[in-house]
Amino acid sequence: MCQLLGMNCNVPTDIAFSFRGFRQRAGVTDQHSDGFGIGFFEEAGCRLFLDYQAASESPIARIIDHYPIKSINVIAHIRKATQGVVSLANCHPFQREMWGQYWLFAHNGDLKSLPPELGKGHFYQPVGSTDSEQAFCYLLEKLRSKHEKMPSSEVLFAELKEITSTLAEFGVFNFILSNGKFMFAHCSTNLSYIVRKAPFTTAHLLDEDVTFDFSTVTTPTDRVAVIATLPLTDNETWTKFEPDQLIMFIDGEPVLEQNCPHSRPSKATTNTCSS
Amino acid sequence: MCQLLGMNCNVPTDIAFSFRGFRQRAGVTDQHSDGFGIGFFEEAGCRLFLDYQAASESPIARIIDHYPIKSINVIAHIRKATQGVVSLANCHPFQREMWGQYWLFAHNGDLKSLPPELGKGHFYQPVGSTDSEQAFCYLLEKLRSKHEKMPSSEVLFAELKEITSTLAEFGVFNFILSNGKFMFAHCSTNLSYIVRKAPFTTAHLLDEDVTFDFSTVTTPTDRVAVIATLPLTDNETWTKFEPDQLIMFIDGEPVLEQNCPHSRPSKATTNTCSS
Repeated sequence: MCQLLGMNCNVPTDIAFSFRGFRQRAGVTDQHSDGFGIGFFEEAGCRLFLDYQAASESPIARIIDHYPIKSINVIAHIRKATQGVVSLANCHPFQREMWGQYWLFAHNGDLKSLPPELGKGHFYQPVGSTDSEQAFCYLLEKLRSKHEKMPSSEVLFAELKEITSTLAEFGVFNFILSNGKFMFAHCSTNLSYIVRKAPFTTAHLLDEDVTFDFSTVTTPTDRVAVIATLPLTDNETWTKFEPDQLIMFIDGEPVLEQNCPHSRPSKATTNTCSS
Repeated sequence: MCQLLGMNCNVPTDIAFSFRGFRQRAGVTDQHSDGFGIGFFEEAGCRLFLDYQAASESPIARIIDHYPIKSINVIAHIRKATQGVVSLANCHPFQREMWGQYWLFAHNGDLKSLPPELGKGHFYQPVGSTDSEQAFCYLLEKLRSKHEKMPSSEVLFAELKEITSTLAEFGVFNFILSNGKFMFAHCSTNLSYIVRKAPFTTAHLLDEDVTFDFSTVTTPTDRVAVIATLPLTDNETWTKFEPDQLIMFIDGEPVLEQNCPHSRPSKATTNTCSS
């Protein structure tokens, strides 16, 4: 398995504090040492840092400490290989272009026997050998073949929910997906989030004895959602996703939520589950 | 305009020496300071470092000095903006996936009034606002719509020559393109290359007073082709591309060459020019 970290904000924000704790889990406080990646959206652009070394030791990860990049949407991933060898091609997040936008995707889980239709002749094909990249390509393929241009966020959310529900039938499918504006997060088993907003206080990392006072770097209107496989701080209240819950974050807050269980009655909060 | 740097080898090689000289041209010895990028293929994987800061000053560029990444194929670019604002989305190289492989593309030149067919509804759409990314998407679109899977290198070369010839009608089109195995380089105006092989000697940079003895880090069978807009060293003999020349490099040497002028008699060396 792996661990996920996402950040969605209403102002460009530096993820250094959260990433500092997160990367300790890649060999120091946990064993997710088979590569890592972190991708930053900056307006339409996107930059993605990948390494097959552990995030706790990689010089590529250390640069994030020295060169704090401010971004509205960030996705990071530390890998513990289940399917696919340890290699750069298998590091998350994966990146593709769809509808003239970059998309980043990172997955925590294990999907077995994905549909055979994920192969040659389609728009999107995996480069590496992970179930995760295969699922990402499937997801984009489904969306892209249905829409020639970006639909509304509501339509996108509803269709993503449907595709997610299909893929979740193949195993554990916790993921974070973003196009630089929206951030979608889906939980099969483990995912939590916190929204930090005024009045900002101090936070203390779980994985390293580091405290940070957010009130020193924020304005009263700032809002930052942080999503992680397991909470990153021990003095704040994180909200645990429900199983099969998909949430869309915009401008630092959850705006659409959906439970889409495929083997029990729907608990939809904003829409009906079509699977 | 911009400047290009490419490296194609038969063994994973560190580009630090060439990149050290090259990045001086981003503000020190020349004025290509509107962002930079460098992409490394490592087996099927690819990592791309981009920054809208000048390569001579960027902390992202400095990491290449401290963390020498060995690669068979590398493409780097320093930008002097002609079309498109200074932003991350407009930094080269651009990356896309085609046929389950990553492709990197960097361009030096200026293309005016590209065909309108480069728009919505196609596989590949530009994210930024450069003529370069538009040309890259056009090029991939043409190849991808003709072949569901990767054709032979000879077929690919012939088709690339045809597409390149079409695009070169719109202006200056020097470019380097790679899928991690092959490296294609096309010259409209300025592009040179050198093949370093045994017996290896010392090289002295043009842009900084630095000498390096390649015999200390190589074996007799190593072979490295370096391609650059302008030669990087002053004590070696670089081969200047002819105008309209397309060359495919594999394992550190040119293996297919083609002149494809569209306004004068063909000087084809391995194939006929179909445009």
